[in-house]
Amino acid sequence: MSTPERTIYLDHSATTPVDPRVAEAMAPYWSAAFGNSKSSHGFGQAAASGLEGARQTAADVLGCRPAEIVFTGSGTEADNLALRGAAWAARQNGRGNHIITSPIEHHAVGHTVDQLHDLFGFEVTRVAVDEHGRVDPDDVAAAIRSNTCLVSVMMANNEIGTVQRMSGIGKVCRERGVLFHTDAIQAAGRLPLELDDINADLLALSAHKFYGPKGVGLLYVRRDTALVPAITGGGHERGRRPGTVNVAGAVGLATALRLAEEERVTETARLRRLRDQLIEGVLTSIPESRLTGHPTERLAHHASFAFRGVEGESVVLNLDLEGIAASSGAACAEGEPEPSFVVTAMGLPPEWSIGSLRLTLGRTNDEADVARVLEVLPGIVEQLRACG
Amino acid sequence: MSTPERTIYLDHSATTPVDPRVAEAMAPYWSAAFGNSKSSHGFGQAAASGLEGARQTAADVLGCRPAEIVFTGSGTEADNLALRGAAWAARQNGRGNHIITSPIEHHAVGHTVDQLHDLFGFEVTRVAVDEHGRVDPDDVAAAIRSNTCLVSVMMANNEIGTVQRMSGIGKVCRERGVLFHTDAIQAAGRLPLELDDINADLLALSAHKFYGPKGVGLLYVRRDTALVPAITGGGHERGRRPGTVNVAGAVGLATALRLAEEERVTETARLRRLRDQLIEGVLTSIPESRLTGHPTERLAHHASFAFRGVEGESVVLNLDLEGIAASSGAACAEGEPEPSFVVTAMGLPPEWSIGSLRLTLGRTNDEADVARVLEVLPGIVEQLRACG
Repeated sequence: MSTPERTIYLDHSATTPVDPRVAEAMAPYWSAAFGNSKSSHGFGQAAASGLEGARQTAADVLGCRPAEIVFTGSGTEADNLALRGAAWAARQNGRGNHIITSPIEHHAVGHTVDQLHDLFGFEVTRVAVDEHGRVDPDDVAAAIRSNTCLVSVMMANNEIGTVQRMSGIGKVCRERGVLFHTDAIQAAGRLPLELDDINADLLALSAHKFYGPKGVGLLYVRRDTALVPAITGGGHERGRRPGTVNVAGAVGLATALRLAEEERVTETARLRRLRDQLIEGVLTSIPESRLTGHPTERLAHHASFAFRGVEGESVVLNLDLEGIAASSGAACAEGEPEPSFVVTAMGLPPEWSIGSLRLTLGRTNDEADVARVLEVLPGIVEQLRACG
Repeated sequence: MSTPERTIYLDHSATTPVDPRVAEAMAPYWSAAFGNSKSSHGFGQAAASGLEGARQTAADVLGCRPAEIVFTGSGTEADNLALRGAAWAARQNGRGNHIITSPIEHHAVGHTVDQLHDLFGFEVTRVAVDEHGRVDPDDVAAAIRSNTCLVSVMMANNEIGTVQRMSGIGKVCRERGVLFHTDAIQAAGRLPLELDDINADLLALSAHKFYGPKGVGLLYVRRDTALVPAITGGGHERGRRPGTVNVAGAVGLATALRLAEEERVTETARLRRLRDQLIEGVLTSIPESRLTGHPTERLAHHASFAFRGVEGESVVLNLDLEGIAASSGAACAEGEPEPSFVVTAMGLPPEWSIGSLRLTLGRTNDEADVARVLEVLPGIVEQLRACG
């Protein structure tokens, strides 16, 4: 790794550093209260107490019951448990075989739906998105059949920042008696997560997206929702997610979620101002540039662009040489052939869609960082166009 | 939690505290080198470098290639990936539908095999174990059919400490062209793990069993072994285990595995002496007591007993009041109705099998701890018998 003296991290949708307050909250559970939370002795009870405290904290933020919280090993695993669990439970109970989703889901949902189709014979409908990447709740309603068992639409998109009409989609599903799962991995810590508004039966989070540790996710499972465990083993997490619970991780997730929620309104307003400066600056200083995703209904920290005729990954590499960490799309899709399936699904032509750049702000960023990007980015794009 | 001033932890098969050297190795990856290992910028490269260093360290201990190592979110998940992945790949490739396992596997294997049978229609044979909980390789050979795709036998049992004849079972599988998976979660850090001797195609570990962190496991996958991913998403871990990698956890696992291997011979000899004192002391001082599992082919830190007519969980609770943390069997099975399926499979009659006690030694234990157990345990058993 060779980076300039001053580095600017603008890839907060890929991952975030652990908040020192979170690391501090986790520390006792590595070696002091290290017990297995399923052990009946004092060491086990101390661990169980930390775990159940974390569950209560997370439930308070989500406005749900602690028993509706399942800790997992990642956000991806939480999405897998939601989809595999609900699909298989529906099949077992004779409640259908058809899944509805969108074409711009993260691979944790998209590839899972693909496997449920290819390997397990579930039917899949992907409702279209508009030019801003939004799903119309009426399209979801129209796609629901008598054998539809699950709808999965992400709350906010990782590549383009677009926020979906959760309440509307949830309402449609509720009315038709179909389970609604949302991948809220990008939304958590950035949008309100009260479950009564979101109207979801299943909702997945990942701690490392909001200054918590990697290796721990959470699935909200509305009471009485039938789920077949996607991973099988011991009786942890009420039989829904076996394996010795990562208590430190659960405590880290809960602490990070609480802190993010406490600071959300203030921090979101601050980031939105920076983001708007960034968007305005990029669009006015770089010819043939456009914002991707929704102009207003987007995550407050999220700016995503397309530059005509420029490869996004080349922009990212050149920014990295200037000490600016950015992304050409989703971190999870790095190295995949361009163009991104997300911007393609919105109808962007190939000469635009290969040129995606994602700049996602966070706690360490300030106006100087935005100014620095605006100082170097136009030249990088110009140079790449000249070389191309 | 109310514990006496002096507490003695004798439940190292349930979990272990994180070694301070391991916590120190993990620390930089929480907030300094916090990047997403799939990101192409400098922050991502720093994380990827830590991850690949951990992979190399683990590969060195196992005597395999780094590309054969898959980091997972737990040992249970590693077992699930091995079983689900190999079974589904075999079905896809028309290589069979039949799985052979033992009746004394951890639930991570046992319940996964059950789901593969109940939900997915795989055929299952459980070969019997002898009175010490050992599988005979000849029985495995006899159970292999033309449609057998996978054999899964644990390297060492969590409840009774019995070590299996790995090499013999592996040899049978190799000769018949059947994949061999072993759950080495209890064995790792305690027995040699050189894969050429073990003869396994798939082998699962869990960091928290050898002084590493909870929330991270490892699956060894022999080169060219076909696996369908059990969790689907992004392209991490060569597509075998998606989800942003817990780099701190992987570094923690690898560091703990290296340290355990470095100290294994010395520490194993020390623990074996303590264990033998414990076994001899218990069997001579408590009437109608017996050792469960194999008398010699057992984990060096592992002592497991049955007391006729006494409930194991009552013994554990009374030991806890004395500040001694023990287990009545597997931590993962706490709260389940007795008697344990493991001791039942060995043919122990119910009046014995309800009375299981597991005492598993570790780094913090010494002769004083053994003496203290021998001081209080006979009285506890006597009192419980008097009350019963």
